[in-house]
Amino acid sequence: MPTSELDQLTQLLSKLPGLGKRSARRAVLHMLQQKEQVMFPLAAMLEKVGNQIVTCENCGNLDTTSPCSVCHDAKRDHTTICVVEEVADVWAFERGSVYGGLYHVLGGTLSAMDGRGPDDLNIAGLERRVHQGDVQEVILATNATVDGQTTAHYLMDRLQGKGLKITRLAQGVPLGGELDYLDEGTLSAAMRSRQEFA
Amino acid sequence: MPTSELDQLTQLLSKLPGLGKRSARRAVLHMLQQKEQVMFPLAAMLEKVGNQIVTCENCGNLDTTSPCSVCHDAKRDHTTICVVEEVADVWAFERGSVYGGLYHVLGGTLSAMDGRGPDDLNIAGLERRVHQGDVQEVILATNATVDGQTTAHYLMDRLQGKGLKITRLAQGVPLGGELDYLDEGTLSAAMRSRQEFA
Repeated sequence: MPTSELDQLTQLLSKLPGLGKRSARRAVLHMLQQKEQVMFPLAAMLEKVGNQIVTCENCGNLDTTSPCSVCHDAKRDHTTICVVEEVADVWAFERGSVYGGLYHVLGGTLSAMDGRGPDDLNIAGLERRVHQGDVQEVILATNATVDGQTTAHYLMDRLQGKGLKITRLAQGVPLGGELDYLDEGTLSAAMRSRQEFA
Repeated sequence: MPTSELDQLTQLLSKLPGLGKRSARRAVLHMLQQKEQVMFPLAAMLEKVGNQIVTCENCGNLDTTSPCSVCHDAKRDHTTICVVEEVADVWAFERGSVYGGLYHVLGGTLSAMDGRGPDDLNIAGLERRVHQGDVQEVILATNATVDGQTTAHYLMDRLQGKGLKITRLAQGVPLGGELDYLDEGTLSAAMRSRQEFA
């Protein structure tokens, strides 16, 4: 690397998830060969998005406004809240357009290993929303990992007895999944929750 | 994705080598959560580097000046030119600090498949340098791929008969390489070029 600026740029890029030092170097070279098409537009867009995007005070989603466009949308079902770990999960649901209610982003999971307790997650905000509004159903859509499921059980305990319907995502064989390649836990869950062939 | 700006940023990022659409989205989220430490510094550094870095008119290296700091350095051996495919190869040699001469970046290889002929590479510039200066040795350090070696042979033909010493990198077992995992081509090259145990 000839200059310290190039070094600094490589280092900044290599901090992004999915980019190591080598791929960051390749990315820098790629950009230097396409300054006008990639490098300057990327610089401008980073600046713009960085200035525009805020965290929704209500649900924790990222958007240009707070409350975000989901919380703001009168056409969505305001009686249902889908609780997720990260903003990326909100985006995943929205890409699928399979859900018409509101969200609540926890900001992670409980984790004994990493020392994350209930106060480190946005649980107080969830309780406030549940008490205030006319919420009828809370969907606990944390990941199907140990930490995710522990967090779901914890939330279940805290939200129980408030007259809410509390649900979770179905577990089973993913679409296109080949049984031979699935782990035993998934197979066992799919077998236990088997449904009548309609 | 809530806004079109986020979409555009994700798309720009996913054009970088090593980043797909999913990892670009994760990178955007990561940056939004660390605006001051990552997002704004990255935007500023991209802008700065983009404005600073130019291609060396002499050797094709990327640097803040042209001729670049390598071509400019009087302490380096100006009688030897190491011919490489890409700027990344220059950086690889410089990281190792194993070479004290000059470079020449071809900008790729000859490729019948991709329709790249001699005029698409910076070969004219290499010939000019060889004629002008007091160059004594040209090291053909293209990759050990079919295209790389084809290019090396082509350059060998064009540079021959000018009183130059033309060399190439040694081929053999890489340091730390286990014979059992090496391909037959490498093993065969290492056997043919075997050296006296000193």
